[in-house]
Amino acid sequence: MLYFHNDYSEGCHEKVLQKMIETNLEQTPGYGTDYHCEAAADCVRALCGNADLGVHFLVGGTQANLTVIAAALRPHQAALCADSGHINVHETGAVEATGHKVLTLPSADGKINARQIADAVTAHWEDDSFEHMAQPKLVYISNPTELGTIYSLSELETISEVCRKMGLILFLDGARLGYGLAAKGNDVTLADLARLCDVFYIGGTKGGALFGEAVVISNSAINEDFRYLIKQHGGMLAKGRLLGIQFEALLEDGTYFEIAQKADRLADRIRETLDSIGVEYLVDGVTNQIFPILSDGFLKKLSENFTFTEMGRVDENRRAVRFCTSWATTEKNVDALCNELLNIAHNL
Amino acid sequence: MLYFHNDYSEGCHEKVLQKMIETNLEQTPGYGTDYHCEAAADCVRALCGNADLGVHFLVGGTQANLTVIAAALRPHQAALCADSGHINVHETGAVEATGHKVLTLPSADGKINARQIADAVTAHWEDDSFEHMAQPKLVYISNPTELGTIYSLSELETISEVCRKMGLILFLDGARLGYGLAAKGNDVTLADLARLCDVFYIGGTKGGALFGEAVVISNSAINEDFRYLIKQHGGMLAKGRLLGIQFEALLEDGTYFEIAQKADRLADRIRETLDSIGVEYLVDGVTNQIFPILSDGFLKKLSENFTFTEMGRVDENRRAVRFCTSWATTEKNVDALCNELLNIAHNL
Amino acid sequence: MLYFHNDYSEGCHEKVLQKMIETNLEQTPGYGTDYHCEAAADCVRALCGNADLGVHFLVGGTQANLTVIAAALRPHQAALCADSGHINVHETGAVEATGHKVLTLPSADGKINARQIADAVTAHWEDDSFEHMAQPKLVYISNPTELGTIYSLSELETISEVCRKMGLILFLDGARLGYGLAAKGNDVTLADLARLCDVFYIGGTKGGALFGEAVVISNSAINEDFRYLIKQHGGMLAKGRLLGIQFEALLEDGTYFEIAQKADRLADRIRETLDSIGVEYLVDGVTNQIFPILSDGFLKKLSENFTFTEMGRVDENRRAVRFCTSWATTEKNVDALCNELLNIAHNL
Amino acid sequence: MLYFHNDYSEGCHEKVLQKMIETNLEQTPGYGTDYHCEAAADCVRALCGNADLGVHFLVGGTQANLTVIAAALRPHQAALCADSGHINVHETGAVEATGHKVLTLPSADGKINARQIADAVTAHWEDDSFEHMAQPKLVYISNPTELGTIYSLSELETISEVCRKMGLILFLDGARLGYGLAAKGNDVTLADLARLCDVFYIGGTKGGALFGEAVVISNSAINEDFRYLIKQHGGMLAKGRLLGIQFEALLEDGTYFEIAQKADRLADRIRETLDSIGVEYLVDGVTNQIFPILSDGFLKKLSENFTFTEMGRVDENRRAVRFCTSWATTEKNVDALCNELLNIAHNL
Repeated sequence: MLYFHNDYSEGCHEKVLQKMIETNLEQTPGYGTDYHCEAAADCVRALCGNADLGVHFLVGGTQANLTVIAAALRPHQAALCADSGHINVHETGAVEATGHKVLTLPSADGKINARQIADAVTAHWEDDSFEHMAQPKLVYISNPTELGTIYSLSELETISEVCRKMGLILFLDGARLGYGLAAKGNDVTLADLARLCDVFYIGGTKGGALFGEAVVISNSAINEDFRYLIKQHGGMLAKGRLLGIQFEALLEDGTYFEIAQKADRLADRIRETLDSIGVEYLVDGVTNQIFPILSDGFLKKLSENFTFTEMGRVDENRRAVRFCTSWATTEKNVDALCNELLNIAHNL
Repeated sequence: MLYFHNDYSEGCHEKVLQKMIETNLEQTPGYGTDYHCEAAADCVRALCGNADLGVHFLVGGTQANLTVIAAALRPHQAALCADSGHINVHETGAVEATGHKVLTLPSADGKINARQIADAVTAHWEDDSFEHMAQPKLVYISNPTELGTIYSLSELETISEVCRKMGLILFLDGARLGYGLAAKGNDVTLADLARLCDVFYIGGTKGGALFGEAVVISNSAINEDFRYLIKQHGGMLAKGRLLGIQFEALLEDGTYFEIAQKADRLADRIRETLDSIGVEYLVDGVTNQIFPILSDGFLKKLSENFTFTEMGRVDENRRAVRFCTSWATTEKNVDALCNELLNIAHNL
Repeated sequence: MLYFHNDYSEGCHEKVLQKMIETNLEQTPGYGTDYHCEAAADCVRALCGNADLGVHFLVGGTQANLTVIAAALRPHQAALCADSGHINVHETGAVEATGHKVLTLPSADGKINARQIADAVTAHWEDDSFEHMAQPKLVYISNPTELGTIYSLSELETISEVCRKMGLILFLDGARLGYGLAAKGNDVTLADLARLCDVFYIGGTKGGALFGEAVVISNSAINEDFRYLIKQHGGMLAKGRLLGIQFEALLEDGTYFEIAQKADRLADRIRETLDSIGVEYLVDGVTNQIFPILSDGFLKKLSENFTFTEMGRVDENRRAVRFCTSWATTEKNVDALCNELLNIAHNL
Repeated sequence: MLYFHNDYSEGCHEKVLQKMIETNLEQTPGYGTDYHCEAAADCVRALCGNADLGVHFLVGGTQANLTVIAAALRPHQAALCADSGHINVHETGAVEATGHKVLTLPSADGKINARQIADAVTAHWEDDSFEHMAQPKLVYISNPTELGTIYSLSELETISEVCRKMGLILFLDGARLGYGLAAKGNDVTLADLARLCDVFYIGGTKGGALFGEAVVISNSAINEDFRYLIKQHGGMLAKGRLLGIQFEALLEDGTYFEIAQKADRLADRIRETLDSIGVEYLVDGVTNQIFPILSDGFLKKLSENFTFTEMGRVDENRRAVRFCTSWATTEKNVDALCNELLNIAHNL
């Protein structure tokens, strides 16, 4: 069975593993105060072109989301996001468990736009009962989104402008950020994100690391005492260096970006194959996630040798599914998948 | 200016006031352990036909909602309700502040049905990622709803059956319960609610009291230690007798029901007047709330002498508004409103 | 049986009741936005000599404490108080339920001093593991304390100075404030409190009202959006005017202070009687609470006609107890108590 | 500089690293549902002699503590522990952030006893105001404690008996459990812990793993839905296998116990050396932590080549410090430390 159902089925990129092996018996201070963490943070700052950024390494995406939101909001304030936003759907109410409501905006492709945000916030303040409703204060977006779409620089600039004008905090979840930055047509850079967001993160778990997300904070009010919040939420590893070592390995020579680019190109090949057999998509994507709509018969056959994620029934005969490539995906496995796709298409 | 914009503009019914005056200098134990609270609780138990019910008097509706939900759920569990549910829209994230997500079901008239509940809960458990999503465990309904509609006995029985079958807790918010029980066509009794719900409350704030809600608990797991939760959430009045005295006054001789009935009949008169001039409604209601759709011109004229609540624009020329009657509404004021409605209709 | 076991056994002062009767059928806007609340808030501002203070009326003391602390702190920050502090001992973990740790300082008489505060905060910041400990950020004191003692102006000034120097928020719980202000030897005024504290409250529940505390906020960061927090914690009464009416009645002509003074003088009489029979005290107090240490035999006899609160065994034969006077205590009942005290003393 | 200041300065034991290397490119399901996690859980169950135990792998100790306590308690319930308990002192209020108060018992050596527990719980229920106080419901103990002491089987049996009799949950923090089980004089086994506790954990972070704690739950009410709580608190690794692989490596052939034993024996050697030069201890310990009291001059000299943790000043001239050995400590480094200790002792 070849796995295409997610981008976290394997361990880590060999460079990461190698650095963990080499440093294993080094003695370092604990809790992320070691020189590997500092070196990795400096890499992040250099890539973002801003030496003043707060950089913190957290264990995973849900933890990054809940910790950032808890650090950013007062108790009556809420996070605004797409209805498909990860914090709304797939984190077991982690944000609510820190006391904050998640307010949603409708979205077909996982993205929200500046107009929606401005309208929701204006509606709040214009309502006579505004004090009876959670106050929208933080905008949560993912790039790439849960549906593999990406924001353009212009879209992010408009959102950022609205946020600053309306006193909102902009938080970008970059669990798959590498795959977004490497996507065809992307015009956003890390420096743009550091400039436009109050806080964002560079995902390691899905981008070559064993685990870990690098949270980058430009808003000093959120950065203040942030390490207390990491500790309070159980995210401060005694051996915090594990996170620093991994990001150091991935970022010091551009490996993070290379492997994402390779994964995106492999996904492009799968998309081309699907296009060639006339497949429709749930959402048009450009990153490492592909969401084709295929017939039950097609999928039954395909599932004999390949895994994919179910995204729900589209009509009586067809379901949307997800294929993922990753830093670990091989050309050979993509060849096998593409051949099987063509094969099934010709024989159905 | 005559007030029709809500049902809590005045103090309390004269019987309540009278009893507060008579008992003012009595010395009683604190925190709701006095004999007035016990007598009022016994009234509730008698009306529900169940001597074993837990009965607790809380200060207000939001507090009742958040305290009951906090008492009923484990941290990963969520409340399921209509998208217009009070806990979802108008409590400043009070439920989320206790750590719980509110999951919503679409509803045009403020009601949800057993099928929707069953489908949502089934979908949760059938999803491979169920542990990544807040677990629907408590069903929150209001009767009457925010939109003045009521549940039939048959609807409640079906919902209750689904809840028991699926291991869900059924919680009914009765902030305006009196007006529901007194509505034309209502076939639900307090005994039905005590039998079908795990917990519900009888609203005093909108039903003749200065403030206070009588929470009735048949599910012993929720009732256990419930007073700790009242205290923890700041709802345990030192002079708890104030709540007992008010409910005693309202319930001991049926005043609560009589005054609600009177308010509903006055609302019926307003509905008849609106019908007579061919007005459409946002929602067809039978209780003390009326939601007509009127033109901007009509409302401009009406607003010169009457208050009402804005419910939003319906089309280019028309808005929905809300009129409320209450235990305090006088025949004379209803006459004045009805005359003005006819007047404006004839002159527009 | 005559009640001396607490100061909240009766309803409210007749002036309060009278104003509730007079205003009962007035129609007012809800949620504390009515003119009674505004008038009462203006009374408070005038008494404090500061027209810019935020003034909010909350239902009770636990609610005031938890709402203020939730409004003031970020998630990793803690409240510092005496080990006997009400928030630490008698609020069912209400502060913790908002997510914040309560850190305690030892205190024999219910008071803490500036030195203790400074030492605790310095120790926090000097500890290498400071990020692993909740950060002391708010100082909670009660005046009078749980043990009936009061702070001098000089003590409060020193505490306030330390707080400002160290970036701490000073919060004073004034559940029994009237009795403190009226105590012999008190040199603190409301204007002092408004000047020295970031936030404090004037207790109504124990000072002549049915219920209610007037929270006074001079720190604008805490005052911002404070009404959202009241609503979120279930403290926003639909008929918020009830609180305004009560404080208006108590404050507009000085009744609040007169009745507290009367209660303190009655307590002084009880203290004089106890002194005359050579009784020791758990704590020397000057307000409406008295904490004598009496023998088991004495208390057995006394309990036949008088109630008091048990404060714990002091030695093999003696227990500390509490007597309270209040705005409702009569000369006649104090005469009876004093006579009985003398009586028992002479016959034992 | 040789590190003796903690037991988490290095990476992981070579067996762990080796298994991570070998399995790195395996494709497995996510979130701890892979066969490595299952195999490791089976090892734990076998070692505990109970095939029905719930076993869950969490990222770290603070996370294990907060997740277990959140899973076990209703909102008004509190955890009872020694005043030096890790959850009370060194977790930035993580338990309070889940809404629960931590109640403390005095302890000189990090341990609490059954009598203290029974007295505290009895006192709660005998207090008239019990509903005004957080309810003690869960007993948290550490073995070894923060101060390196261990519980005897008899002590644990008595505590467990009291807990069962009084309806309390017994939770044992085993962050350093290996070092406790391997200590001279220990008579407790994993099977005892599984039998006596409702929940405990086997610490990996300080016992040879990169990170991770194996939570073992015998109480089915706590185990129910436990994975939701892991996810909600950000503790569910996408590549959950990392935890399974590490515990598999450590437990499948007894490595976990062997390396702890070696560390304890090295600590014994340091203790013997300290004894030989007449050193006093803050606490007498038998595990990998040693708490000698040494003069400022001694420590100044020692700090030139060795690290240790400061535990506080004992008198004008002396401070208590902590040395730790670990799975990674070498004979050679212990030789160096012992020689230096003797050296300084002879030259002072």
